[in-house]
Amino acid sequence: MELLKNKIRQEGKVLSEEVLKVDSFLNHQIDPLLMQEIGKEFVKRFSDQNITRIITIESSGIAPATMAGMILGVPVVFARKRKSLTLTDHLYSAKVYSFTKKESNDISVSKDFISNEDTVLLIDDFLANGQAALGLIDIAKQAGATIAGVGIVIEKCFQPGGDLIRKEGVRLESLAELQSLKNGQVQFVGEENNG
Amino acid sequence: MELLKNKIRQEGKVLSEEVLKVDSFLNHQIDPLLMQEIGKEFVKRFSDQNITRIITIESSGIAPATMAGMILGVPVVFARKRKSLTLTDHLYSAKVYSFTKKESNDISVSKDFISNEDTVLLIDDFLANGQAALGLIDIAKQAGATIAGVGIVIEKCFQPGGDLIRKEGVRLESLAELQSLKNGQVQFVGEENNG
Repeated sequence: MELLKNKIRQEGKVLSEEVLKVDSFLNHQIDPLLMQEIGKEFVKRFSDQNITRIITIESSGIAPATMAGMILGVPVVFARKRKSLTLTDHLYSAKVYSFTKKESNDISVSKDFISNEDTVLLIDDFLANGQAALGLIDIAKQAGATIAGVGIVIEKCFQPGGDLIRKEGVRLESLAELQSLKNGQVQFVGEENNG
Repeated sequence: MELLKNKIRQEGKVLSEEVLKVDSFLNHQIDPLLMQEIGKEFVKRFSDQNITRIITIESSGIAPATMAGMILGVPVVFARKRKSLTLTDHLYSAKVYSFTKKESNDISVSKDFISNEDTVLLIDDFLANGQAALGLIDIAKQAGATIAGVGIVIEKCFQPGGDLIRKEGVRLESLAELQSLKNGQVQFVGEENNG
């Protein structure tokens, strides 16, 4: 998605070979018009699927997921992150390990808002090690929902998340695919290295 | 806002005299088309203000704020909640006490995303004791920004938040004003009690 890649080129900050900061339009400040275009692109890429619900994770997944939901006219559910759940009676939950924070969190979705009659699109802001996306896949499977696929705003293709999702037999669509962040440069998949 | 009040009547769950649960369209599952209408209504109510930025708090404020931002074509910033901040160098932050959780959290906004040239609209999902909204007002004042006002989706008018905000000299617009949740009934301001 060229618009998104240009925004990353202009405003993304490469903090290390593994960390790209996009706080100016996705993770702290949100560019709503870009989010709208991102929503449209997700809808286009999954237009062959009869999506009934979108599932994402708080907080940075909410804006792109809500835009896709607005265009499709379907509800959006954001999984909640909590240190650890005691009361899990009416919840589907999954453990998500964060390699950056080196801690495990539970994510959960109420059983009221996902069922075996749903075809769900799973949306998240970043894909790196894939733990969050695998958690969403786990929850969708617990509910017996059909998984249309995973839609990611920015994938770090040099980390294992993409392969892990495909190994689960789940379709993956990433709108910006990072090949590398070496030498302080953003290089996208399929692009010459001009660095 | 009649559409919102009808949704609350249909799907809101009165858990106690102080707690209304609206997980089916605002706090866990999101109704994107309703959020779009809520965004429009905020924009209409503050149409006399030259808003340059919208500030909200993760997570439930993000969807309505992003919709308002989309319509206005201005960036949306979500303040981050953290247990307590150690590194506050490049952040404006404020303490927010939660009466429900009986704990204090810090909310923070990067100094990159709010300045004294901004006219900010502060949006949140619920207004009860007003601590979160006062935290946002505090951050806007630290940045020297002009405050257009506070936009709230659901105000519990029987709690002190509204008065506290007006005492700060800040304009408040709430789209659904709850008069009472007594006897398991939702009663809006200006409405007869049919219970």
